[in-house]
Amino acid sequence: MKKTLKDVGEFRLIDAIAELDVVSGIGDDCAVWTPPPGHDIVMTTDALVERVHFHHEWCVYEDIGWKSAAVNLSDLAAMGAEPVALLYGLALPARTLVNAVLAIYDGVALCLDSLNLDIRITGGNVAESPERMMISVTAVGIVPTGGAALRSGAKPGDDIWVTGTLGDSALGLFLLMNRFKKEDWPGWLALVDRHLTPTPRVEFGKAARDIVSAMIDVSDGLSGDIGHLCIESGVGAFIDESLLPVSEEAKNVAERILRPVEQWALTGGEDYELLMTAHPDRANDLRRAAESTGTRLTRIGSTTTGEMQIRRLDGAIEELECLSYRHFS
Amino acid sequence: MKKTLKDVGEFRLIDAIAELDVVSGIGDDCAVWTPPPGHDIVMTTDALVERVHFHHEWCVYEDIGWKSAAVNLSDLAAMGAEPVALLYGLALPARTLVNAVLAIYDGVALCLDSLNLDIRITGGNVAESPERMMISVTAVGIVPTGGAALRSGAKPGDDIWVTGTLGDSALGLFLLMNRFKKEDWPGWLALVDRHLTPTPRVEFGKAARDIVSAMIDVSDGLSGDIGHLCIESGVGAFIDESLLPVSEEAKNVAERILRPVEQWALTGGEDYELLMTAHPDRANDLRRAAESTGTRLTRIGSTTTGEMQIRRLDGAIEELECLSYRHFS
Repeated sequence: MKKTLKDVGEFRLIDAIAELDVVSGIGDDCAVWTPPPGHDIVMTTDALVERVHFHHEWCVYEDIGWKSAAVNLSDLAAMGAEPVALLYGLALPARTLVNAVLAIYDGVALCLDSLNLDIRITGGNVAESPERMMISVTAVGIVPTGGAALRSGAKPGDDIWVTGTLGDSALGLFLLMNRFKKEDWPGWLALVDRHLTPTPRVEFGKAARDIVSAMIDVSDGLSGDIGHLCIESGVGAFIDESLLPVSEEAKNVAERILRPVEQWALTGGEDYELLMTAHPDRANDLRRAAESTGTRLTRIGSTTTGEMQIRRLDGAIEELECLSYRHFS
Repeated sequence: MKKTLKDVGEFRLIDAIAELDVVSGIGDDCAVWTPPPGHDIVMTTDALVERVHFHHEWCVYEDIGWKSAAVNLSDLAAMGAEPVALLYGLALPARTLVNAVLAIYDGVALCLDSLNLDIRITGGNVAESPERMMISVTAVGIVPTGGAALRSGAKPGDDIWVTGTLGDSALGLFLLMNRFKKEDWPGWLALVDRHLTPTPRVEFGKAARDIVSAMIDVSDGLSGDIGHLCIESGVGAFIDESLLPVSEEAKNVAERILRPVEQWALTGGEDYELLMTAHPDRANDLRRAAESTGTRLTRIGSTTTGEMQIRRLDGAIEELECLSYRHFS
């Protein structure tokens, strides 16, 4: 059965979506939800555009669904929030297969399951977009009142920490864009997985919320996201390049393509790790939060009263350029 | 200054947007908001796609911004909710003028001002979309806990009511699509305004919330939206065609193009009026809610235990076909 949206029409598509386990509450003008007392609501929205954010040559529809949920859940994680609901707005070409749309929702469900999140898609809409699929997601979460981890709370002298490893996603994308083959490149799968189906640090974000002074997710690339955090907090930063956490797979591929792995770690985007600052007194608390959630955690520098600087591997101290991916340029 | 997004890049665009009065709280991973105790949260999302939902030949960017807010606020109104926040996701071609983007936000502000709504855009994102602009909006509102007006509460024997007049928006679109000139068509402006810059019934929705048994906004067209309400409520409907509220402008244009105005009122979409059911005992309460908010309100029929039927102008009783606009077909 290769039915397209043109074959079935908008309302039969919505009926099929409404049948899915991951979807609930379709059938009214709005989703309704009772927030628990004593909590703030946090909300974020982000979109994926076909052939801008994802490419059919190298991913399946389930991957697209997974990533569309993951990038928004990562924003919730950066606030230390507990996810409570997702809303999905799809703009789709009429030629799209119904099964492709359902596979996107399956991918959302897979992502939620992998995070043990028992939440649902509680609302959305579908519209026609002749050339490209666009997936617009709004994620809603809760934090205890006043407890959200902001970008703006860092003080000079805080430690700067990051979860996981950096640069993997950008190297995965590099392997895909150059059509390098899985068989020829050890570590290919690990890196490509980091790019296509990233894991937002939801559990760690919640555990770290009351410990950190500021937090942000690493979506634009480490140097860019450090820049965002420092600007919002009004502090500088001193990063030690030798401390940047990188995976063995990233090291091996970077070495073979003769571009230092630290460069990928600094500027590669879409790792969806969490970057945070904390008073040095809270270092052990933060380590315990990492341990309890099975999260690798690395101290990579300190905040300062000065500019953004980096100590290179050779000991040279340079200005840290806040390079990151920019749309339209 | 005719700068495009390509000229200024993503971050300078975001900086310019963040300066606007209608925007607040950009600069973190999520918007944070403390809900008042004793309230449910209602959420809705809807998107406008260039050359699908709007056409540059006949509207300015301010109109697009207005409508993007209005269609979402109308969904909140249908729940009887008080709007509290908007999130905007924009997908934009790199050729788009910065001033065009800012004009969209100006249009949002104009719509909010016209409704005396002191709410802000508290979050969003921008991404590149090579061919078409897409505006994806999430609107958030509150209602007292358990108090949302649903589509599913109608009981057989309720009165069916509708606000305002019907068919105006579809006739406005008809005038635009046929390039009929303002000078030649009395009422042109009123009808076209209904299409381009609709007024969601936010105040009436709130006033009617505790009176109605079910409510929905008229976006797909009256017959389609009656169908949605009846299906969700498990009731039938009996509509009297002679009672459908139509404007003088709609009557005049419909007469001249030789297509009955009742047909426009029944199937024309995007009027963003509210359609509701209420126990006959509540008729006076509902009329008072209409009066207190300056809203025209018309009883057009009753719910039944049977099918969906309509009494035509000539007295014939027919099945009411739930025709409405469908994407992809």
